Parts: sequence; C-alpha cells; structure tokens
Amino acid sequence: MIEPIVWEDGVLKILDQTLLPNKVEWIVCRDYKDVASCISSMKIRGAPAIGVCAGYGVCMAKNKNDAIFLLSKTRPTGYDLFWVLDRMKEGGDDLLSLAKKIHNEEIERTYKIGEHGFSLLFDGASVLTHCNAGSLACCGVGTALAPIYLAHKKGMKINVFVAETRPRSQGARLTMWELGQAGINATLIADTMIGFVMKKGFIDMVFVGADRVAKNGDLANKIGTYQIAILAKFHDIPFYTFLPSSTIDLDIENGGNIPIEERDKNELGYNFNCINPSFDVTPNHLITGIITENGYFKRND
Amino acid sequence: MIEPIVWEDGVLKILDQTLLPNKVEWIVCRDYKDVASCISSMKIRGAPAIGVCAGYGVCMAKNKNDAIFLLSKTRPTGYDLFWVLDRMKEGGDDLLSLAKKIHNEEIERTYKIGEHGFSLLFDGASVLTHCNAGSLACCGVGTALAPIYLAHKKGMKINVFVAETRPRSQGARLTMWELGQAGINATLIADTMIGFVMKKGFIDMVFVGADRVAKNGDLANKIGTYQIAILAKFHDIPFYTFLPSSTIDLDIENGGNIPIEERDKNELGYNFNCINPSFDVTPNHLITGIITENGYFKRND
Repeated sequence: MIEPIVWEDGVLKILDQTLLPNKVEWIVCRDYKDVASCISSMKIRGAPAIGVCAGYGVCMAKNKNDAIFLLSKTRPTGYDLFWVLDRMKEGGDDLLSLAKKIHNEEIERTYKIGEHGFSLLFDGASVLTHCNAGSLACCGVGTALAPIYLAHKKGMKINVFVAETRPRSQGARLTMWELGQAGINATLIADTMIGFVMKKGFIDMVFVGADRVAKNGDLANKIGTYQIAILAKFHDIPFYTFLPSSTIDLDIENGGNIPIEERDKNELGYNFNCINPSFDVTPNHLITGIITENGYFKRND
Repeated sequence: MIEPIVWEDGVLKILDQTLLPNKVEWIVCRDYKDVASCISSMKIRGAPAIGVCAGYGVCMAKNKNDAIFLLSKTRPTGYDLFWVLDRMKEGGDDLLSLAKKIHNEEIERTYKIGEHGFSLLFDGASVLTHCNAGSLACCGVGTALAPIYLAHKKGMKINVFVAETRPRSQGARLTMWELGQAGINATLIADTMIGFVMKKGFIDMVFVGADRVAKNGDLANKIGTYQIAILAKFHDIPFYTFLPSSTIDLDIENGGNIPIEERDKNELGYNFNCINPSFDVTPNHLITGIITENGYFKRND
C-alpha cells in the first residue's frame, strides 16, 4: 500500500497530493509550520491523515502549545485533527512516541474497518465512491476503500465507479490513481453522471469516508456526498460511510452544528463569481450503515 | 443579445464555443462539411442552434442529399437537427430562404418561450440552471434563459446559480459568460454543490433546456439533468424545461427510446478508464412543467 506519511530521521515526509497523478513527489517538513502549511494547502488531506500529520507536527515544535494553536486553525471541518491535538495536549514528555502510536493505531484501524466492511461486498459487486477515502486519506488501507482492498486481496472482483469530485477532483486524481496502483478495476465518471449510472443499474452500493460524524449520526463529508445519498435513496441503493472512531464528535448533537469550510474561490478555476463550500452534511436518515473499527452500525428505523 | 450564427455574403459564421470564455472567435464555414465538422466538434452546440446551422449547411451543398446524410450523422440525441433536415429535404429550390426562415422562426420562438416562462419568476427569484440553454444554444434569447432575460429587461432582480456541467463545463464557460455579458447576477457552483445550495434554501426553481422530448414528456438533456430533477423533487423545488416545439419528437413514445450520445473519453481530461454519456433522460414525473413557444404545459397528476 501507498503510505502518504513517513516519519524518518527526525523529519516528516508527506506525499504531495496536489501533484498526483502526474507527479509522485515528497515534501520534507522540518517544523510544525511546514506541517500546518501542508494541511492548509491540501498537500496532505483526508481527515485521518491530517490528524496523523498534526501529531508529528506537534513533536517538532519547541513549544507544543504554539503548534497546537497553529495546527488547530488549518482546517475546520475534519474532526480527527482536533482529536489528535487533544491527545497531544494531554501527552507527557515523549510526544514522538505518542505521535507514532497515533499513526500506528490509525493504520490498524483501517484494516479493522476493512474486515467489518468486507461482508457488505460480493464477487462482482459494483461500488460507487466519492472523493478519496483510501490510503492517501487515512494511511493503511483507507476507510471506504478498505473493504475493497481486502476483497481484491482475497481474489474477488470488485468494480469501482469513482466520481471526479469537483472542484479539486480528488476522485479522479487520487482515488483513480491509488486503485490503479493496486490493480483494482475502476471507472471514472463526472459528478454529473451519478444519477445516470444508478439508473442504469451499474451501482450496487455507495461507499464514502467521513470528515466528522455528529452524535446523532449525521455525516460531514466532501461536498457532493449529500446529493449522492439522496440519489442512492431514490434508486434504492444502500449508502455506507466508513470511518475510524476518531472521526466521531460526541460533543456535536447533529450535523447542523458542524463547521463547514469555505475554501478559496479560485479552486473552481474560473474568473467568475462562485461559492466553494468544501463539505456538506448528510442527515442520518439517508445513511444505511456506519462502519468503524468497532463494527457495523445500522440505523434503528 | 449574442448571435452565435450569422449568414453573411454566402458563408456561415459560427462563434466558436469551444474557445469561450477566453476567446471570442468566429469560424467561417464555406461548405456543408465545415458545418458538419463544427457540429461534431461542438464548436456550435445546443439542439436548436445545431438545427439552424444544419439548415444553412444543406444550402451550401451541390447535392443536398449528401449534406443531409453527413449532417444527420454528426450528433444523435438533439432532435432539432433531424427536424430541420426533414424540412430541408422537403424544401423546394430556394433552400437558402428556407434556412433563413427556420433561423428567424427559431429566434422568434425564443422570445415567445420567454414570455410564457416569465410568469414563473418573481422579483428576487433564484434560479438554478444547468449546461447552456441561452442565446449560444438557441439563438435569440435562448430557452431556459429566455424568461430570465425578459425579467432582467423589465428591471426585476433574478439570481442565477449555474452548475459547471462537467465534463465540458458549458455552464461555467458559456452560461456564466453570456449572463455576464447581459449584466445578470450569476453564481457558479460545481456539480457537487447542487444538493448543498438546495438544502440551504438558495434555489427557488430549476430551469433547464432540452435536447429531445418524447411523446410522453420524458426529457433528454445534458448529462446531470436527471439527477438535478431528483434533487429538486427531494427538496420540493419546481423543475421546468424550456424548448421550442421543434425539440419534441412525437415518433418516440418515451425517453427509453431516445439515443444517448457517448462522446470521446478524452473529454474528461484524465488518462484513466472512464465513460462519457453526453445526455440523460429525466422521466416526465420529475418535471413540473414544460414551456414551449405555444405556452406552459403542466403535467396531469
């Protein structure tokens, strides 16, 4: 598997995800400001991966509170960042061991998510995914892609439809690339084609990741997730989200209270008036099931 | 208004829509093969505008049957092309007068569509549109944009949200540009943001054009239209389609029989396995009303 985050010889190496799939280049972070800059500019992205990097970032600061403050201001929506920063705040003298522990736990959790999600799949299953919830986003085998990697390893044939995920096109640039590296059969579609492929009967189930889940099960995830959940409901296709428990924010009652990041208008690539919300909230009633390292949770209807 | 098609001094001048919004350049077509090439490569697009160009194309051929055959093979989904070619086939000696008549009728129809659609709007209304169903697609004041142009002319304030419309981004490149030329307030969104803006209450109604409407009212239009109709239904937002009667194909009972064009995979812009259906079909039950030059037609429920 691709490991997007490597701690080596006292520096943090981050695979630059803004250059994929055209270039595989690593950035060397030598202090917490470098890490914060990589997170803000989305050179590293994906809620769990951001959390892991932030942990190492704190280790590289002379004063850990300065690092925690700066890192907490990088991106508002994903919860793992705040969960890790809280752990680092409470951590003792050996912060590096703690950051490594968090990193290893995150990797282990992805394998457990894969095992719990695996039972949803069958040979020949066709899965729609959005954005990137794979190794690049989470370390290990990812979250939404974890069951797919496991099924592939067991010799099952899985077809993945990947939504481009404008404006930053993480589906096309990252998920298509990482599935290709693993030799998994994948088909890219524009975000406009989701209803079409569902109506055609091409999609058996939807697998997405998560940036933050509220206490009531509402899901904040990459912009476009909400409408995919509506389309899945309309076509009677199950919709699952996969996440480590570090993405669950028990302090937030429902999705309406999750802060939604508004990013730079230039990301759309046109010199026109536009908006750029980076996430949306999918209400719990549109979610068939939530899979974490602790198991599969189905909504009580 | 921008006129994308001009017959002048025995040649057909077509505004090259593949270069907008960056360049305003005209292509001079001197024979029907030039016209067919402009249609195939989408230098001119929009079902009504394609029809108008095809009419002039036939006039420029030594043997009109050769032109009709070649032009009929350019694009399969939009119906106006075939409607115009049938009229040209039946036309007498003065084909140029007939082509000009078709062109003028098309322009007149757009103004009538605007008048019939106008009553749906109110001061401060916020309309979501997809792809381009404006002057560039239809001559005159367009179809879906016609009521908006009329309301703007009458001094009403209308906010238009424009979906990018990947893979060819006609919403961003063409609709944003043409609304900007007219001084109409417009906001670009990625195709992933449609559910988000609907949930936020930003959208009062959806206006789209049409490439072909079947006898039962099923609508073939730019890929992504179908899912917008589902999202509109989910959020209880009315969904209207605007078209000249030349877009209605009474020989096709329902949308399942409308041929859907599959275009070149390279249009998505990635070196990955992908599909590229250019249109989808919205079933009549998702359509609140159909507006043509003959009036407003509401579904009998």
